[in-house]
Amino acid sequence: MNESTPGLRIVLVGPLYGGNIGSICRAMANFGADDLVLVNPSPDIDWREAEKMAVHAAGILAARRVVGSLPEALSDCVASVGTTCRRGLYRQHALSAKEWAPELAALSAQGRVALVFGREDQGLFNDEIALCTHLVQIPTSSEYRSLNLAQAVCILCYELFQRRDDYEPVREKSPLAPGVLRRRMEEMWRAFLLKIGFMNDQTADHMMAGMQRIFSRGAKTVDDVNILMGVAHQAEWARATLPPKPCHHPEE
Amino acid sequence: MNESTPGLRIVLVGPLYGGNIGSICRAMANFGADDLVLVNPSPDIDWREAEKMAVHAAGILAARRVVGSLPEALSDCVASVGTTCRRGLYRQHALSAKEWAPELAALSAQGRVALVFGREDQGLFNDEIALCTHLVQIPTSSEYRSLNLAQAVCILCYELFQRRDDYEPVREKSPLAPGVLRRRMEEMWRAFLLKIGFMNDQTADHMMAGMQRIFSRGAKTVDDVNILMGVAHQAEWARATLPPKPCHHPEE
Repeated sequence: MNESTPGLRIVLVGPLYGGNIGSICRAMANFGADDLVLVNPSPDIDWREAEKMAVHAAGILAARRVVGSLPEALSDCVASVGTTCRRGLYRQHALSAKEWAPELAALSAQGRVALVFGREDQGLFNDEIALCTHLVQIPTSSEYRSLNLAQAVCILCYELFQRRDDYEPVREKSPLAPGVLRRRMEEMWRAFLLKIGFMNDQTADHMMAGMQRIFSRGAKTVDDVNILMGVAHQAEWARATLPPKPCHHPEE
Repeated sequence: MNESTPGLRIVLVGPLYGGNIGSICRAMANFGADDLVLVNPSPDIDWREAEKMAVHAAGILAARRVVGSLPEALSDCVASVGTTCRRGLYRQHALSAKEWAPELAALSAQGRVALVFGREDQGLFNDEIALCTHLVQIPTSSEYRSLNLAQAVCILCYELFQRRDDYEPVREKSPLAPGVLRRRMEEMWRAFLLKIGFMNDQTADHMMAGMQRIFSRGAKTVDDVNILMGVAHQAEWARATLPPKPCHHPEE
């Protein structure tokens, strides 16, 4: 049994406390993950506290990368899993850790999978949720939904560690699409949907949340994403170029 | 829906650190447990640190009981589950948290079940293990077996909470789309993609197979399908109606 989980990246957005970061490093080591990326961590983080809590996982802490934006943290990831304890409009498609675990374990065998965690006090914002291909919620008592950040990371690492060997997925021939390609596709669609009046500047974020939910579930591979970019490109070409009426397309 | 886990007791033997005790209280609240017993806690425990980490679970911390021996902590329990990360003679009957969880969840419906955790530095001693009716081990990487105490408690509370039959997971509000609606959406897209020259009559079946693969994975609900029909409808309207150049959309 392979003891490492090479495909797993832990992404912390705007973390505040060194103790949590250190505890997370330890949990990562316990469950065979070692790729830690921090997006705009607080300048006030107590790194000595982080080292103390990391115990024998100081190597993971030392090897952390710091980036300036979430897209940067996800650019080479084939899946990005947002975590939320809240419910609401953009969070309806959240599944539990156990429900996602088999699929995520399989994806992490094919490419890098990011588990994305928000700030200790505010979690992930909607525009950050929108960058995620999956959304996960850890079932808790309704009396106290908010888990400590390090506990949440630990539970997800634990769940994925348990699933690594027991899921045999259908293999796609086309590789999974990395985040940077997804972003490009989403930008093309956003521009096109604005141009055709499907949405306006006020409704764009809301409508794109619905589109991204469909895209993230439906367009998984490079081929998928290329098809959707091709559609947006050709549709925009037709809109901007073809005479409005009568309808005819280039083959006619 | 009963949100508490009345049958569950967390027993900490000789705990050393207040931060761990507080984190444990929070995890207990997250997973519906509220009965905390400490066996001979260290006299040096930082209780202010414990309160800080308990956050909204300060009530569980305040209601803790302190006893002088493990048998006392277990006297009214129908089962007592020792935890260990080590292997060896007295630990051969350890099962994983997932393996025990169904039995323990069932037992906790009938009486009090204690989850027993040892000291941060030394775990449980053999004579303490001998007082337990069950022994559990959380599967970890062989590189770093020792979990933080609070993380270990959190994972076991999480596992037992998941097994209760009254958890209501997040569900989509929009029902799944029936076949007839999917067909209508696919026909709209086929017509549109032909009109804009994305495909022609010869390539349509092949291209639509790619589109349908994306649609079938991505558009699962009635809301999803309605969004995609709206896009196709509006895109076709824009193509057929708007003057080709310069680009402008209805909001402009």
